Order: sequence, then structure tokens, then C-alpha cells
Amino acid sequence: MEKKLAVVALGGNALLRGNQLGTIQEQEKNAEDTLKNLMFLIKEGYDLIISHGNGPQVGNILMRNDAGEQLYNIAQMPLDVCVADSQGGIGYMLERVLRNVLKEYGYNKEVVTLVTPVEVDINDPAFKNPTKRVGKIYTKEQADELTRQKAWIFKEEVKDLASGWRRVVASPVPKRVLNAHVIENMVRLGTIVITVGGGGVPVYYDENGVLKGAEAVIDKDSASAVLASLIKADEFYILTDVPYIFINYKKENQEIKEFLDYKDTKMYLEQGMFGEGNMAPKIKSCLSFIEKGGKKAVITEATKLEDKKYGSKITMEYED
Amino acid sequence: MEKKLAVVALGGNALLRGNQLGTIQEQEKNAEDTLKNLMFLIKEGYDLIISHGNGPQVGNILMRNDAGEQLYNIAQMPLDVCVADSQGGIGYMLERVLRNVLKEYGYNKEVVTLVTPVEVDINDPAFKNPTKRVGKIYTKEQADELTRQKAWIFKEEVKDLASGWRRVVASPVPKRVLNAHVIENMVRLGTIVITVGGGGVPVYYDENGVLKGAEAVIDKDSASAVLASLIKADEFYILTDVPYIFINYKKENQEIKEFLDYKDTKMYLEQGMFGEGNMAPKIKSCLSFIEKGGKKAVITEATKLEDKKYGSKITMEYED
Repeated sequence: MEKKLAVVALGGNALLRGNQLGTIQEQEKNAEDTLKNLMFLIKEGYDLIISHGNGPQVGNILMRNDAGEQLYNIAQMPLDVCVADSQGGIGYMLERVLRNVLKEYGYNKEVVTLVTPVEVDINDPAFKNPTKRVGKIYTKEQADELTRQKAWIFKEEVKDLASGWRRVVASPVPKRVLNAHVIENMVRLGTIVITVGGGGVPVYYDENGVLKGAEAVIDKDSASAVLASLIKADEFYILTDVPYIFINYKKENQEIKEFLDYKDTKMYLEQGMFGEGNMAPKIKSCLSFIEKGGKKAVITEATKLEDKKYGSKITMEYED
Repeated sequence: MEKKLAVVALGGNALLRGNQLGTIQEQEKNAEDTLKNLMFLIKEGYDLIISHGNGPQVGNILMRNDAGEQLYNIAQMPLDVCVADSQGGIGYMLERVLRNVLKEYGYNKEVVTLVTPVEVDINDPAFKNPTKRVGKIYTKEQADELTRQKAWIFKEEVKDLASGWRRVVASPVPKRVLNAHVIENMVRLGTIVITVGGGGVPVYYDENGVLKGAEAVIDKDSASAVLASLIKADEFYILTDVPYIFINYKKENQEIKEFLDYKDTKMYLEQGMFGEGNMAPKIKSCLSFIEKGGKKAVITEATKLEDKKYGSKITMEYED
């Protein structure tokens, strides 16, 4: 019998937390803490795929691109290449730390990291209405100049200490992970595969069938769910900064939901129970995975993964 | 019978040439021209692995790291992470262009790009005598400060328009490609694998057996030869900016060597016939591949690959 296959999407805090500076030492320590929690799945005999976010890292890469052009006149790379850069750097770090953790726990498993393009549709309405804020905060004049030069789109940004204009890019729906077939082969040979970093490098086929890079970012949970369905994973884990799914979150009648079925979860979603920029997209990714035949989707903190008592589990029918 | 397996190491000019600025458009066009020449190997039925250099790209990433710290106080990443970033960005670009070229030529093959750590020995003498120049040119004062802060080592640099001090890092001997086994599995399933970019991300095991990143760069031809031997490739190609191996290069008695056997090639190498910073390391990589059982090593320009009449071939025994 085939082993159970799990896709685990690591949240941003798996690598960088709150007020940290983002040094390599901090990122490695966070990665180690997170990855140790996954040893539970290895012990249980799962084949394992790991995906991860890239928000702060690709943000830094974009800022460095800007700074490199200003100070040294180095050509800036487009957003798709910056995402690919971040997959390389983050993926390598995760892989190296994971190799050490596996050794410490006495597991002898291969780990590989894939640079992963994910197909989107250039006619996705998201391209008409970009919402995802990326890169540095500019003045109005700078923003106007960049719109002229590069057709970048800006929205006003108000933050604690800075305000100004920030580039917005589309966050289109992921349609297909281009290397899903190869990923499935590798993971079924027992190799742990780190892939779909930052939601994947967004690519699309133009009207002539030519594959091009898109100036966009893809939601990592959504892309990870697409991969999980494509390769017929049994379980899908989203590790984030809350231990459970709540309904009526932060209200008097707040309630932890530990076991959820598909129908109720969909109803709560439609009732607006989950934050739009936060829990709702995670819930949608889980529901999409269950719809397409996935057995169990879990949302929890990495540190709660080991104890099966914790975390919220979504299945087609109730199952506790 | 298994198909023939070839490892092709693309030279720097496969992506960036002479006086180009390094825009993404230039890099894509160069990549397309180079990759079209590899269709010859696909047509002949080879399983194929592609490696590539990263000199200008990782140089730019280092400069952007410096600029990002200066302008925005963004933590700089160590060299191993910068190399991994460059594997992500370059690998993605090559993969996307290759997918388009394959389609244009009517081939239906999978392509994947691996982030690839390569093991070196931290006791390699190269770490005592770093020679590889990387990153920007600093003033003496800046260089001294960076030596104090980060223990970077500098050497004086004299260039056309700028002179000053440049960081030097070790270029240790690659011992092992950590994912060779997985790479072999994938390529034998017919997938084209892009790997060992920039010679691989240098890693080493410390005295406690912990895998760490090394502040170093690895010669891509040398690392590609190690991979080719590990996975028992039949043929090893180094694509560069000369069509042939010459002896007595640029002298009156200059001679093209189209067919070379192991013994003569080794003799020429020992006679100092090949430039130390240039052809000699390529020849050494080819000889190492042949020594370990490889059937044929080829050094030529990418554009000469298709015509079997061109290029220099090194085999154990003469064979024309």
C-alpha cells in the first residue's frame, strides 16, 4: 500500500517573526523550530511535501533591486525572477536545516528543493484589479515616474511611520503547478520535496502559446492546495500563527472549531466568519482540496502539529 | 537499453555577453539561442542535464545586497544564500525558455530546476588562500572596516576605470552533489534537469556533522564533472566561447586539436598549454570525468554543437 502523502504549507512565521530583522541566523533558528514539528509526520510514515511563503524575503529582494539600480545602475529584475530568486534562497536554507533536523532525529531521507513555476491565466480578473502590495514605499512623484517608465500600478499606503505610494500587483488564481507530475514521482520515491515556494513563480501562456513570466504573486496556500489535489495528497496542512479555526473570532460568543465538515465550513465562510485577508483564503484552499478528493485539511500552529489533540481538522464528513 | 546520458555545462556567455547590461530581455534572448543548440542532443535521444554559470548574476545580487543595506538597512545575506538566489532566478529563466524551445521543436519533455547544494571540505586549502574575486570594489578604508566587521578578505584590484579593494572568497574542490541520486532518478525518467547552477551552493559538514553554508564559490565545470561522474553520464559537454581546444594558443605553431586522448591531453595540461584561469580548469574537469569512466568529453561553442564535425572531443583512446 502506498504511504500517506501530506502537503504542508509553512506560514510566514516559520521563517521570520514579528519584530525580527531578518538576518540569516534568525531565519535559520525559526526554520529549525518549525521543521522539528514536522518530524511527527515522518515518524508516522508520511511522504512529505513542504511549501512556504516568501513575503518578507521577496520584499527585501525587491528593495535590493531598487537600491542596486539607484547606487550601482544594475538592471532590475522583473517580479517573476525575484520570486524565483526567493525560492532559491529560502528553499536552500530550509533544505539545509531540514537535513540537519532529519539527522538529529535519526531519519535517513533525501530532500530536494525545486524552483517551481505555477501557471496562471493572464485574463484572470486579478490582473485588472491588482491588490497585493509589494516593495518599497515611494513618494507620489516617484510613483508617477515609475508608472510612466514601467507601467507599475500604485496605491496609497498609510503606515505607522511612513506613508506614501506602494506598488500593487495582481494575485491571480493558480491553475496548475507545471512540475506536479515530476514532484509526485519524487515524493513517492520517499524524497521530501520543498516546492511551490512563495506560491510559485507566476507564468502564463500568451495567445501564441509561448510561456511568459507574469508580474504577479500567487497565494501560497492556494497554490499548495492546487498541488496537493493534482498529486492526490491525502492530507493538507496549513501552518500559521493561530492554533485553531475560530468562529465569531474575538466576539463574546467566540468558539473553537476543532472538527469541521465541508458543509458547515462552507456555510461559515459564506457567513463571513473568517477574515478576508487572513483566514478566509486559507479556508477556501482547504475546501478546494477536500472538494477534489482530499481526505483531511488541517489548520494550526506548527508547534501544535505533534499533538493530535490540537489543530482544526476539516473533512468531508465529521470525523473525530 | 538505457538512453545515453549527457551533462551540458553552459558557459557564462550562454546568458550574458560582452558589453551587455544584463537586462532580463538580453538574458532570455541569449538563453534561447544557446538552448536551441541543445535540441540536437534531444533529437539524438539523449537524457539531458543542464548546468550553468552565475558569475555576473551573483555579482549583481551581492551588489544589490550591499546597496540594500546602505539605502534601506536590509540585512545582507551570506554568499551561500546569494548563490542559491541566483540558482533560483537563472534556473527559472532557463527552464521557461527551454520549455518554449522544446515546444517550438515539437518535443514533449518535462523540465525541472533544482536548487543544488554541493559539498566541499572546510579544510580544503582554498579556504586558507581565497582567490575568487566577488562583489563590488571598495576603498581601502571600507575594506578594512568590512574585514573588522565580517572577517572578509580583500585583494587589491586594478581595472580600466576603477581601482580599489575587492573581496576574495575560496573556490574549494567540489566533493559531492548532495542530490545526485534524485537527479539520476529524474533524468532517467526522461525529465530534463537544470541543476548545479553556478557550481552549486557550497556546503560543508562541521566537526559535529552539522551541514553548514560556506562563504565560497565552486567552479561550475568542476562541479558539473563531479555530478556527471556520480550519475554515470556517458558524455560531458562544456560550452564556452571558443570552438576548439588549441595547443600553442596564439603562437606561430598554434594547432586545433579536434580529437584528443586522455594521455596526450594530460601531457599538454602538464606542459602548461592551457590558460590557468580559463582553459586549464575545463580540461581538468574533462579529464576527471574520463578517468572515472566517462566516455566522451567535449569542449566547444554552443553554436558548434549541432555539427558533429566541430568541437574538441576527449576520449580515453583516440576515436574519430
